[in-house]
Amino acid sequence: MSSSSSLDKLIDALCCLPGVGRKSAQRMALYLIDKNRQGAREIASSLSDALDKVQHCELCRNFSDETHCNLCKNPKRQEDLLCVVETPADVMAIEASGSFQGKYFVLLGKLSPIDGVGPDELGLDILSKRLQQEQVKEIILATNPTIEGEITAQYIADIASEYHIKTSRIAHGVPVGGELEYVDSGTLSKAFDGRQTIGDS
Amino acid sequence: MSSSSSLDKLIDALCCLPGVGRKSAQRMALYLIDKNRQGAREIASSLSDALDKVQHCELCRNFSDETHCNLCKNPKRQEDLLCVVETPADVMAIEASGSFQGKYFVLLGKLSPIDGVGPDELGLDILSKRLQQEQVKEIILATNPTIEGEITAQYIADIASEYHIKTSRIAHGVPVGGELEYVDSGTLSKAFDGRQTIGDS
Repeated sequence: MSSSSSLDKLIDALCCLPGVGRKSAQRMALYLIDKNRQGAREIASSLSDALDKVQHCELCRNFSDETHCNLCKNPKRQEDLLCVVETPADVMAIEASGSFQGKYFVLLGKLSPIDGVGPDELGLDILSKRLQQEQVKEIILATNPTIEGEITAQYIADIASEYHIKTSRIAHGVPVGGELEYVDSGTLSKAFDGRQTIGDS
Repeated sequence: MSSSSSLDKLIDALCCLPGVGRKSAQRMALYLIDKNRQGAREIASSLSDALDKVQHCELCRNFSDETHCNLCKNPKRQEDLLCVVETPADVMAIEASGSFQGKYFVLLGKLSPIDGVGPDELGLDILSKRLQQEQVKEIILATNPTIEGEITAQYIADIASEYHIKTSRIAHGVPVGGELEYVDSGTLSKAFDGRQTIGDS
C-alpha cells in the first residue's frame, strides 16, 4: 500500500495496457498526476468518449463513430477500388502510407476453422452484398502473408470471381531499405516469383 | 484522418504518456477499444478519481487522498525514524524493497538555486516544525547521490543538528548483482570509502 489509494488504483489500471509493466505504469501515473494534469484529463475524457461512440461501420466493419465511417462517407475516395484487410490497424498503416485512395473492407480476423472463425465471422455476407450492389472494379487483397491470410485471400478471390470482379494481391518481396542478406528465404522466394520486367524489351 | 474521429482523439491523447510514441499510442487505443473495454473503463474512472482526489500530504508532502497520507496515518510505522527522499517515486521504490518501516518526508525536488529551488520550495519549514514537535531519533537522508542531492542532504543534516537529532546517509556502493568491472569509478570510490569491517577483529 502506498501513500494514496487512488494513485495505487490508477497504477493497477494502467498495467492492463499492452507493453506496460508495473514500473512503466507507475511512471505514467506519477507523470500524469504530478506533471501533466491537463493531459490526464484529456486521456480520461477521450477514453470515455471513444467507449461511448466507437462501433463498427455497417459498410466496411472498421471502427466508426457513426453508422458509416469517415472513410466510407468520404466522397473523394474511389468507389470502384476495394481493399480487403484483416484489422483496423492495417487500414491505419495503409492510410499512413498514402498509397491507396479507394475504399476498405475490414475482416476483423482471418479464416481459421480451428478457432471457429468462418466466413460469417469475417462478415463475408456483407462483402458479397456490397459486391452485388456497388460498382466495384477491382478488389485488392491485403491480408497478411500467413497461411490463414493466404487462404482467406483465396476464399475472397473465389467470391469475387462469382461477380466477375478483378482481384489482385499486394506484392510480397524484399522490404524497401532491407538488406537481401537478412531477408528470410520465404520472402526471397516471393520476391523472385513476383519479379517485374524493367523497360519495354 | 482515420475511420473514427473519437479513436483519433484517443490516440492523440495517449501520445502524451512518457515513453509512448504514436505507434504505441495507436496500439494501446486499438487494444482498449477492441479487446479490453473493461480495462479502458477502469483507466478512465481511476484517472478521473485520482485527478479529483490526489493532493499532497500535509505532514510528508507525498501524494495523498486526504490531508494525511496512508503512510503517515499508519500506526504500525516507527514514529522515531524519518527518511528524507526527493520524490514520491523514491518512496515507492523504498516501500517495494520493504527495507524501511519508519516515516517519510518528500522534498519534491532538491536544492538548486539556479532553478530557483530553495529551502522553502522543498518544504524544509514543514520538516523543521516536525523535528520540533515529533520525537524523531534518526533522520535517514536518501536523496540521490548527485551534487544537488548531496548538498540537499548536507543542508538537512545541518537543520537536524540544531535539534540534536542523529542523521545518517544511505550507503552508496556497488549494486547487488552488479559486476565490479562495469561499475563507474565514482561508485567504486564510494564503495571503498564506505567499506565495512567483517567479524569482530
